[in-house]
Amino acid sequence: MMKNKAVVLLSGGLDSATALAIAYAEEYELHTLSFDYGQRHQREVEAALAVARHYDVQEQKTITIDLRAFGGSALTADFEVPHATSLEKISQEIPITYVPARNTIFLSFALAYAEVIGANDIYLGINAIDYSGYPDCRPEYLEAYERMANLATKATTQDGRKFHLHAPLLRMNKADIIRKGMELGVPYGLTWSCYEGKDLACGTCDSCLLRLNGFKEAGLKDPIGYLPQ
Amino acid sequence: MMKNKAVVLLSGGLDSATALAIAYAEEYELHTLSFDYGQRHQREVEAALAVARHYDVQEQKTITIDLRAFGGSALTADFEVPHATSLEKISQEIPITYVPARNTIFLSFALAYAEVIGANDIYLGINAIDYSGYPDCRPEYLEAYERMANLATKATTQDGRKFHLHAPLLRMNKADIIRKGMELGVPYGLTWSCYEGKDLACGTCDSCLLRLNGFKEAGLKDPIGYLPQ
Repeated sequence: MMKNKAVVLLSGGLDSATALAIAYAEEYELHTLSFDYGQRHQREVEAALAVARHYDVQEQKTITIDLRAFGGSALTADFEVPHATSLEKISQEIPITYVPARNTIFLSFALAYAEVIGANDIYLGINAIDYSGYPDCRPEYLEAYERMANLATKATTQDGRKFHLHAPLLRMNKADIIRKGMELGVPYGLTWSCYEGKDLACGTCDSCLLRLNGFKEAGLKDPIGYLPQ
Repeated sequence: MMKNKAVVLLSGGLDSATALAIAYAEEYELHTLSFDYGQRHQREVEAALAVARHYDVQEQKTITIDLRAFGGSALTADFEVPHATSLEKISQEIPITYVPARNTIFLSFALAYAEVIGANDIYLGINAIDYSGYPDCRPEYLEAYERMANLATKATTQDGRKFHLHAPLLRMNKADIIRKGMELGVPYGLTWSCYEGKDLACGTCDSCLLRLNGFKEAGLKDPIGYLPQ
């Protein structure tokens, strides 16, 4: 039987790896899309490749785009990566690691890719619980994006296709995501979350804090290595 | 008086040069954004720079993105550029020069740029008359994009800004656009429309046909050179 195709946005982090595992479990033919956008944590891109390889995806594309051209974020410009913020603070404010219009840009490439290969389904690992501070991780944003996408392309206006954005983690917290991922056998040892991008994860940036707390709440051990605290 | 800032998508073609002239006449501080996306008509990118220089814009950014990575268009891949199609046909079908999700991708970068520099206004030269075959040139698409954009960013969800997409040519035909541009003194001699990207415009591709017909209907002479027919 011919499988339906799905495009999966794959960052190399824990969330998108779990989203990929869910699309895999739902038996799509997998096409993963990663971005080298001048982020300071280049290790993320390598992690994405390793995860894609693990799932033996049909095709993995890495698109290089220079979001540094615009600046405005601690992930792409010369800001300090925030450390030791409290978990409450991460979830309430828009952090300086926010990258302007990032998900909008990523989804736009995913849409082009999906249109060309004949995929109607686009998976992404965003969630609105731990990242409620990021406007482009909210359900109302996703719905508006999907509506726009279905007016944007030849696929939908001429060929009668309909795009569907899947954000299976949208309403899960990090511990739920990790539990779900463990059930599905996600190789979390291959993923990378730390904003610093050194040999070992720093354990103190916002992203490490969320990850470590998620494993703790799930009662599980994170398989990646951390700097001694 | 501090001017408001506008981001203008500038392709180097006739339409976006006219949109830039309109934003200039409306006294915005101008920030132009162009894309080198592997289009076969690279001359377009040079034309964009020349037009930006003419208007002495505050900043001109050219973003390189590889839309060839996806294929699916005569403008970026190994298709034949269509010649001598009738004008009726251009306006009714989705042409093979359609680039998947192009305007969605371009607008997403414009949104990031606008967010970072503090511009709430984004100008683009699309029109729904001559290009009614392009789904991402229709008013309903633009409205959906604007709605999504206003849910997508920190600028709108935290800082109380509101993005407005301006498509001043949306309901004008090519002759109207050229008449308007001539009124405003647009340097059409610096613009480039031909899909072929040779020294002289071919005069027979869809884009040349629309342009030549526009000048003819406007009763004006196109200042650029064409290959002898």
